[in-house]
Amino acid sequence: MQPTIRSFDLAHLAHVELLTPMPEESLRFFVDVMGLTESTRRADSVYLRGWDDYEHHTLKLTAAKVAGMGHFAYRATSPEALQRRAAIIDKAGRGKGWTDGDLGHGPAYAFTTPDGHNMEIYYETVWYRPPPELKPALKNQAQRFPARGANVRRLDHMNLLTSDVVELREFLENVLGLRTTEKIVLDSGQEVGAWVTTNNKTYDLAFTQDHYGAKGRFHHVTFALDSREEILRAADIFLEAGVHIETGPHKHAIQQTFFLYVYEPGGNRVEVANAGARLMLAPDWQPVVWTESERKKGQAWGLKTIESFHTHGTPPIEQYEGPRKR
Amino acid sequence: MQPTIRSFDLAHLAHVELLTPMPEESLRFFVDVMGLTESTRRADSVYLRGWDDYEHHTLKLTAAKVAGMGHFAYRATSPEALQRRAAIIDKAGRGKGWTDGDLGHGPAYAFTTPDGHNMEIYYETVWYRPPPELKPALKNQAQRFPARGANVRRLDHMNLLTSDVVELREFLENVLGLRTTEKIVLDSGQEVGAWVTTNNKTYDLAFTQDHYGAKGRFHHVTFALDSREEILRAADIFLEAGVHIETGPHKHAIQQTFFLYVYEPGGNRVEVANAGARLMLAPDWQPVVWTESERKKGQAWGLKTIESFHTHGTPPIEQYEGPRKR
Amino acid sequence: MQPTIRSFDLAHLAHVELLTPMPEESLRFFVDVMGLTESTRRADSVYLRGWDDYEHHTLKLTAAKVAGMGHFAYRATSPEALQRRAAIIDKAGRGKGWTDGDLGHGPAYAFTTPDGHNMEIYYETVWYRPPPELKPALKNQAQRFPARGANVRRLDHMNLLTSDVVELREFLENVLGLRTTEKIVLDSGQEVGAWVTTNNKTYDLAFTQDHYGAKGRFHHVTFALDSREEILRAADIFLEAGVHIETGPHKHAIQQTFFLYVYEPGGNRVEVANAGARLMLAPDWQPVVWTESERKKGQAWGLKTIESFHTHGTPPIEQYEGPRKR
Amino acid sequence: MQPTIRSFDLAHLAHVELLTPMPEESLRFFVDVMGLTESTRRADSVYLRGWDDYEHHTLKLTAAKVAGMGHFAYRATSPEALQRRAAIIDKAGRGKGWTDGDLGHGPAYAFTTPDGHNMEIYYETVWYRPPPELKPALKNQAQRFPARGANVRRLDHMNLLTSDVVELREFLENVLGLRTTEKIVLDSGQEVGAWVTTNNKTYDLAFTQDHYGAKGRFHHVTFALDSREEILRAADIFLEAGVHIETGPHKHAIQQTFFLYVYEPGGNRVEVANAGARLMLAPDWQPVVWTESERKKGQAWGLKTIESFHTHGTPPIEQYEGPRKR
Repeated sequence: MQPTIRSFDLAHLAHVELLTPMPEESLRFFVDVMGLTESTRRADSVYLRGWDDYEHHTLKLTAAKVAGMGHFAYRATSPEALQRRAAIIDKAGRGKGWTDGDLGHGPAYAFTTPDGHNMEIYYETVWYRPPPELKPALKNQAQRFPARGANVRRLDHMNLLTSDVVELREFLENVLGLRTTEKIVLDSGQEVGAWVTTNNKTYDLAFTQDHYGAKGRFHHVTFALDSREEILRAADIFLEAGVHIETGPHKHAIQQTFFLYVYEPGGNRVEVANAGARLMLAPDWQPVVWTESERKKGQAWGLKTIESFHTHGTPPIEQYEGPRKR
Repeated sequence: MQPTIRSFDLAHLAHVELLTPMPEESLRFFVDVMGLTESTRRADSVYLRGWDDYEHHTLKLTAAKVAGMGHFAYRATSPEALQRRAAIIDKAGRGKGWTDGDLGHGPAYAFTTPDGHNMEIYYETVWYRPPPELKPALKNQAQRFPARGANVRRLDHMNLLTSDVVELREFLENVLGLRTTEKIVLDSGQEVGAWVTTNNKTYDLAFTQDHYGAKGRFHHVTFALDSREEILRAADIFLEAGVHIETGPHKHAIQQTFFLYVYEPGGNRVEVANAGARLMLAPDWQPVVWTESERKKGQAWGLKTIESFHTHGTPPIEQYEGPRKR
Repeated sequence: MQPTIRSFDLAHLAHVELLTPMPEESLRFFVDVMGLTESTRRADSVYLRGWDDYEHHTLKLTAAKVAGMGHFAYRATSPEALQRRAAIIDKAGRGKGWTDGDLGHGPAYAFTTPDGHNMEIYYETVWYRPPPELKPALKNQAQRFPARGANVRRLDHMNLLTSDVVELREFLENVLGLRTTEKIVLDSGQEVGAWVTTNNKTYDLAFTQDHYGAKGRFHHVTFALDSREEILRAADIFLEAGVHIETGPHKHAIQQTFFLYVYEPGGNRVEVANAGARLMLAPDWQPVVWTESERKKGQAWGLKTIESFHTHGTPPIEQYEGPRKR
Repeated sequence: MQPTIRSFDLAHLAHVELLTPMPEESLRFFVDVMGLTESTRRADSVYLRGWDDYEHHTLKLTAAKVAGMGHFAYRATSPEALQRRAAIIDKAGRGKGWTDGDLGHGPAYAFTTPDGHNMEIYYETVWYRPPPELKPALKNQAQRFPARGANVRRLDHMNLLTSDVVELREFLENVLGLRTTEKIVLDSGQEVGAWVTTNNKTYDLAFTQDHYGAKGRFHHVTFALDSREEILRAADIFLEAGVHIETGPHKHAIQQTFFLYVYEPGGNRVEVANAGARLMLAPDWQPVVWTESERKKGQAWGLKTIESFHTHGTPPIEQYEGPRKR
């Protein structure tokens, strides 16, 4: 049984860096189809955000030879929390050390998960200040509603693939202080997926067993919309834009997320999901454990999970060259 | 009691011409905020349509000194129906004669309502053929979904002001063959509003008593959206674009339309409403008559009708110079 | 090319009789889960209607040994239209003759489709008058909103299986005067499905090739809801009630209907769909023809059509004993 | 500038006790119209909860001579947090002492706000276990979706009236450890409303200046629904049930809540609002301060705030007998 409450050193998932071999097409997808707003660009990267994201960026799109996830970051709840957590990570032997930060945020402590995904944590950030033409009518909103494409609201969560679900979960619980809210355990006892969180969202990070046993691959990043109606409309917009729709819209049994998965032009899987009413407010929430037979029922309303959902990740397995250097 | 079924000589409300003293701003409003698509432009007019409108245009936007409604048109159900109905109008003494038509449609028979609104009917039309970049993914759709602004779907209905509701209603019923579905009758016996239709939509034309007793003025034109959720989102979009929101979103008691009224930059009132599930399929539908006390309850959920809704029309009363020349 | 406009002798699909071997369970499904209201019951039948259906009933649920569709009816637009159309059917050799009608409607002319489905047409009807506890707050509504189960609004359309799509379509066009709006034609030239209508709804009747070549079977009946959001919620309600969800919610490419299919306890397939914005107002609408390769793309957003959707009908093929006696 | 992050001793608003002089009618309202589920009843109280509330009850409905709010409670994050916070309250001189708890929860520390509202905090709770007929299909949900009335999901927040906004806000911040996310400050410098939270919801408690300067009165309690569409439907359900709709549906400028206010039969104001996408994840969120002129613009889309919204509270001012005994 997990402790009734964990540390609140980390505030929230802050940003994700996606690598794309089709940088122009990927950018058009994120701006015109998804409705993100460009904050700035530097070198091979473009920095983007949803209209309700308060920081400088939540998506860093970087040109690369192969698709994948470059790194992802959590923001700490205070300067002290950042130092405290960096020390714990360092002690756990996973630290890579401090960086000067990036556009939009201050010094970051970089490290890797046991599976080789690049992560960082930081506290100092740049609150987004919209230029005049993007100033919202209501002052409690980060930016004007774009009225373009799918109008995604904010970064919601991310999903990793991993060669070892238990190892990754224990690292996230014990070293980063995240809480597990749901997981999948097969009849064999093997744990093949887990959903964790650092706040009252029921999850901001998920990870599932890599079908190929590869290390450090990426499954998808999710942006939130306000309603299921908007996700249905997003499906129309993806269809019109020629975007590959992998599966959905439908409702997951796990976490009850209303989902829609597509591939952005660079090959990375992207989800739009409803920002959702589902919160975990109970301090003593115990993980919901899904069994093999329960998973065989398909998604909430009976949709069978499509095969590629279990196999496709980035980098694509054909281009996989082993876990990233740590 | 009205006859159980009327003629089907007219198929549907086809297009509306709006006059605007702010042509550039009005065009930006209809294209960027409402999400209409421009078909073409000629002289002082721009021709526009919603993504599900099958004809060349449903809105003709014409630069003019004073705001107002230039004319509106119904499409006939066949060449024979057109000839038959033109003869009836001619016999009623309201005809102005045949024109060569306009961009997008063939010969039209022009006439005026007893209150002086310019109308026309025609049959031959140009089915819209989208250019490659606007070709829809599904072949049973007129055009690609624009994913811009409020994304209005199609022209829905129009509302006139009139100095004499009964006279106008009887003209529309007896000369044009429309059917009345709902109306308002005050305790005094005065009829102050009526909703009529030529098809299974519960109305495609409405008219209410002009507060000033003026003739031939215009109240609003309405474009349809698919869901109430999209109308709520349209309210956000109008707010962000600095468009004057007059009233709504709320639900009318009459016709149960979920409404939102704004003024376009030229001063004409424009409504977005849900495309709606409400159909009149019964061939022997009898008009629903609303009494004065029922109207005093406000709109469906209790909203009091805003004063300007009863007084504002175009041309504005300050610029009104009597009914149009017939 | 079909004539620009057809007869308007028929007003709308009026009611469907479903046969169920589980009458109690089917009744509970339609009342508690679907949210229909019982009008009355007589002998082995219960008469039901949606809250916006204006007639006495739109669903007649009859206990029977085997599931299936007992008969279905269209209402004529006038007494004259009824007589005229009955004479045409009689001349076509498909008539069974006049009946005294049923609870809720007057004399009906009964006949069969070429495939053996029982049909009838009638004009005289009983407009529903709600008892005090079901009186609606707004007088332009048939009945109080039930706030129970899925709250289906009204009968929308019906889908038959047939051994010969062309024969059935030509009968419906030429003898009943319906119009075809969409159809499927395979590369071989075989027509395997068609959607027809008698009003401005884009369809109120559909029929597809019976996988087994059987005659007179039934595919599904559809009730309409106001929004896609309500259909998603209906999926939750079906899930909670243990109703078998066959497929959906998703969007059909054909007709763009947002669909959700379930089996009622008696085994008949039932659909809930959005009442929808899609109208056919053009008098010269030409049928949209879907090709084999277009159909292979799956539904609008890519969902592959589930196998049972092509094979399951009622009576179930195992209990099929040949076409009904005519 | 408030500290970047406050204590997390309190987890969430846990339950509210409403006093009603019409206990039968109020119970019917909450069960049949709102869709709450009764957990149990004892003495003059009935204990109720929404289908997604995890505790034994979130609403305690108690028969009383005069309408009002009996008490409200927050759940602590741990036994230690409860003890720690009780000591701070005691030291602040507002404590009333420990109670044995109530049905559904363990020992509680009772106290009053500076304005006289009764509060309590506790940790031990009874997780709701549904009886077989209310067991949900998905194991990560507290209870079966009721499919009855408005189907409210969970307790969302509460709004108090107070004679002194600053005093109450400072108590909630300094003694209870809540954070302020938005507030209203008039040109005179007077603070007349504030919104506070103890978790990532942007508020779970609000309070505004009592128009009459009375102490300890109650403004409203809010239950959450998943979508704006469901709130529009709730308006229909309230209308049909004869419930007094005070104002809405519309969108607040402050907090951007999509709201609908009604009076339950006992006279207490109740709101349904969308569970909403708006979260406060930033650890250094600074309060949004609304000025007098900004408030004069009305609600988000321009609706003028109805007069009774500023004056009506419970107990009604006519029955007010001074602040509760402490």
